[in-house]
Amino acid sequence: MTPMNILVVGGVAAGASFAARARRLNEAAQITIIERGPDVSFANCGLPYHIGGEIPTRDVLAVQTAESLKGLLNLDVRTNSEAVEIDRAAKRVRIRNLETGADEWMAYDKLMLAPGASPLRPNMPGIGDPRIFTLRNLQDMDRIMAATEEGMRAVVIGAGFIGLEMTEQLQRKGLTVQLVELQPQVMPPLDAPMAALLESELRHNGIGLHLGDGIERFTGDSDHVRCHLNSGAVLEADLVILSIGVKPDSELAKDAGLQLGPRGHIVVDGFQRTSDPDIYAAGDVIETLDRVILGSKTAVPMGGPANRQGRVAADHIFMPDKVRPYPGSIGTGIVRAFEAVAGITGWSEKRLAAAGIPFEAVTVNDSHHATYYPGAKPMTLKICWDPESGRLLGAQANGFEGIDKRLDVLSTAIVAGMTVDDLCHLELAYAPPFGAAKDAINLAGFAACNRRDGLVEHIETLPDDPAVQVVDVRGKPLADAFPAPGKIINIPFPMLRSSLDKLDRTRPVVTLCAFGKMSYFAARVLKQNGFNVASFNGGLKGSVDPRSPAKLPNP
Amino acid sequence: MTPMNILVVGGVAAGASFAARARRLNEAAQITIIERGPDVSFANCGLPYHIGGEIPTRDVLAVQTAESLKGLLNLDVRTNSEAVEIDRAAKRVRIRNLETGADEWMAYDKLMLAPGASPLRPNMPGIGDPRIFTLRNLQDMDRIMAATEEGMRAVVIGAGFIGLEMTEQLQRKGLTVQLVELQPQVMPPLDAPMAALLESELRHNGIGLHLGDGIERFTGDSDHVRCHLNSGAVLEADLVILSIGVKPDSELAKDAGLQLGPRGHIVVDGFQRTSDPDIYAAGDVIETLDRVILGSKTAVPMGGPANRQGRVAADHIFMPDKVRPYPGSIGTGIVRAFEAVAGITGWSEKRLAAAGIPFEAVTVNDSHHATYYPGAKPMTLKICWDPESGRLLGAQANGFEGIDKRLDVLSTAIVAGMTVDDLCHLELAYAPPFGAAKDAINLAGFAACNRRDGLVEHIETLPDDPAVQVVDVRGKPLADAFPAPGKIINIPFPMLRSSLDKLDRTRPVVTLCAFGKMSYFAARVLKQNGFNVASFNGGLKGSVDPRSPAKLPNP
Repeated sequence: MTPMNILVVGGVAAGASFAARARRLNEAAQITIIERGPDVSFANCGLPYHIGGEIPTRDVLAVQTAESLKGLLNLDVRTNSEAVEIDRAAKRVRIRNLETGADEWMAYDKLMLAPGASPLRPNMPGIGDPRIFTLRNLQDMDRIMAATEEGMRAVVIGAGFIGLEMTEQLQRKGLTVQLVELQPQVMPPLDAPMAALLESELRHNGIGLHLGDGIERFTGDSDHVRCHLNSGAVLEADLVILSIGVKPDSELAKDAGLQLGPRGHIVVDGFQRTSDPDIYAAGDVIETLDRVILGSKTAVPMGGPANRQGRVAADHIFMPDKVRPYPGSIGTGIVRAFEAVAGITGWSEKRLAAAGIPFEAVTVNDSHHATYYPGAKPMTLKICWDPESGRLLGAQANGFEGIDKRLDVLSTAIVAGMTVDDLCHLELAYAPPFGAAKDAINLAGFAACNRRDGLVEHIETLPDDPAVQVVDVRGKPLADAFPAPGKIINIPFPMLRSSLDKLDRTRPVVTLCAFGKMSYFAARVLKQNGFNVASFNGGLKGSVDPRSPAKLPNP
Repeated sequence: MTPMNILVVGGVAAGASFAARARRLNEAAQITIIERGPDVSFANCGLPYHIGGEIPTRDVLAVQTAESLKGLLNLDVRTNSEAVEIDRAAKRVRIRNLETGADEWMAYDKLMLAPGASPLRPNMPGIGDPRIFTLRNLQDMDRIMAATEEGMRAVVIGAGFIGLEMTEQLQRKGLTVQLVELQPQVMPPLDAPMAALLESELRHNGIGLHLGDGIERFTGDSDHVRCHLNSGAVLEADLVILSIGVKPDSELAKDAGLQLGPRGHIVVDGFQRTSDPDIYAAGDVIETLDRVILGSKTAVPMGGPANRQGRVAADHIFMPDKVRPYPGSIGTGIVRAFEAVAGITGWSEKRLAAAGIPFEAVTVNDSHHATYYPGAKPMTLKICWDPESGRLLGAQANGFEGIDKRLDVLSTAIVAGMTVDDLCHLELAYAPPFGAAKDAINLAGFAACNRRDGLVEHIETLPDDPAVQVVDVRGKPLADAFPAPGKIINIPFPMLRSSLDKLDRTRPVVTLCAFGKMSYFAARVLKQNGFNVASFNGGLKGSVDPRSPAKLPNP
């Protein structure tokens, strides 16, 4: 039997995983990787951390080389080579050697397209200034490192994953950093209140935040680049990082007539096959199924999905009787900005609302492990669920420690189709250094079930209707030191049962506290005493001040 | 309507949670907690950590007091009071005031039994020595603290959760500690290879380990206690900690004729009702459903289940139309010993084997986050699954960081009924400080699926049959520096494809490496070249040396 001839376009996450799995399944196949850049299988998620020096050596980012892939996997790797045309009828690809400019046709039995996605670089005045950088590969990283030195002024445009990581790392390197974001919040995938801790942390670390403002054009002279924002503000910079998103590198596929989605991603089936059954695609270039809202599509330009999609494609070629389809992505993401961490899995409230999908949401505050064990750090969780079935639709978390753990559990719960009831009874690992007898995830389940069972009504914003009595149930010293906004009646919770006559039973009541827990307790007391009452969801910490203190500092 | 009269026996985890939830659901009820000890609602999981000074202040362990529970929850708490008799016909309990000795009958509409479990103290010669301690409450803790000082010799008997925590904390306090365990391993809930890292860490920290040896009797004089072990060894001690397990405090229930299980636990239904519908029970005193092997029973003396069972019971009393049953426990547990951490969720291999339940198991080694990001720590995961359906039955993990995270995800996956296939496609939070594009949990899923799909056979122990060719595919310097046991052929993996003629195709081959990954790669190469080959599951690290180095130390 003639060995199968496999051609792979793109040698980073999806392409390299595909090729490795293909080799594991078939020793005989001829497997060739065509990579435009000089490197294959490098750690692209690590690039910002080397720029800031947190990853001190460059070597560790070059996970594999053409030579090591030959030795380990018997792969033929052609770097500095670009696939410029697919001849589907003849099953061949025209490859351009980027060093010599020479073209060559290479035949395939099966073709994998894993070219990735490019940083957006919008066509606007001044965009060509060489001090405006994007970050995709080791060469971009090298250029940024060569262009940065302590004391310089940087402007980072776009406050998503890469923007936040670059902001932190440039500041770490000694630059002054301004961060510009078109949305009125950083980390646009999160709901704004869940991103507020990151903003607080960025400001605390001296980052200039320009939220709800976008870049309009650049001007520059030999001294610096000027970033002209929509608001009219002008930021001077010695260098600019553009991190406003990516677009799929699907031109090759488009030119070959493969089906593309509405945003230019390659359309694939569950086995990563494109509209041509001999051509597969995986990674940042494709759209896939959404695992939360079944029937919808999503594109998740992340390393995890890319790796696993590559694997599925190889399985489909070499063990078609056993391959299981890629189940889709849910878009789990996490980012650290200095000490603060925030992330999301599944859908946010604003995304559900924009899509017209019914949902309910609750926010709870807790510590990342038992509070009596030293070092407990505050943490906030928000979950969204389907009001009909109780099925979990999304979760967000922020804090300082243990955020990844909660996101991972909730991501698992979402793909399992778990409901908020199920969250109540997850049995999570508890010893004082690691958790609590009731983990924040259990608490989120309890809060959601309390709502579903009609035990409590929540409100999301403090009312400005003077007819509503807003009762702050924190202790008086705390309520005085960190007052809630607006007209407030302070009744510390232990006094509430004996202070009911201070409230007007004919007028609605909203209870509030620091974390949303005592206000729930208070709402239960008042509701059972005949009041029309709602509890302020998430407390002052969740919706007003992400660092709202629960306790007065020690005297 | 007359307020309901609720009596609660036991005011720590289950009893306090029950009472708090009951109050939240019903402001009018008369709720009284009867607590044998002087404290309620204390942090019993924190006791060892205060003894060692890691939790510096005692106050934080007394989470609530009788006074604070009155103020917050309008509960009547009677400490130093013991329930000594239940008169089910008259629905009343005889309460003894332990300070005055006076008895009093108290009526109930609903009774909650949450008395907990007592440390085992076997009847053996010398057991009455006052230098032999058990640890259950704050008073035990105070006594141990008063009896310990730097330089003393301690013997800890029983290497489960409490035994390991006490060992670490006593050593932290400056004592010399010997640890005795009847099983041939520490942390008996784990499979022995998964506990080996803890043993290595304990030895590394100067703890004397006496495994597979039990206590037979004590003798003592004014100078010290002598612990006589089954082996004949005698350990001298200034104090002894007995931590060999607990028994449910179910005498009161037994005397009242309530149904007990085979090991003396109170039998309850899904709503925590005992065989008397007006009497509920929760916490360490009950047996409950096992969430893994449906139809079987389990008893999990842990704070998490106790808290949640108490909540279910209160819901059943006060919102019977909405209450959802307690789904059972899976027995998630985690323990830290110095820098090392290990834990389990669901069933171990040995427990499955002992119960005659079919299973398969695989062990994988990985790092707790991307290896290219500084600080990556080694980690080992083991999963067990049902060979028929692929459903996950149990998981164990050990390492230094991120162990709780993996256990929590796998605990969630188990109760969701997920299969090993599902583990492959969990989309876990990845940024370099937090994880990897392919998390260890994904890798465990891949390894299990590779087995299920017939891509690889694993063996669990290295063969001593000389007909088997054992091929070590690590690099030669590493293979020489840390040789595998037995007769080994070293063929570094990159040389394998060109060295097939060094092996005899008529004889079976076992491949091995440090972590079980390269040996899998090698097994695939050999299998496709016609060899009868198996890969050594988990590598040398998993089954031979828990600290088996993957790389040579830097020169």
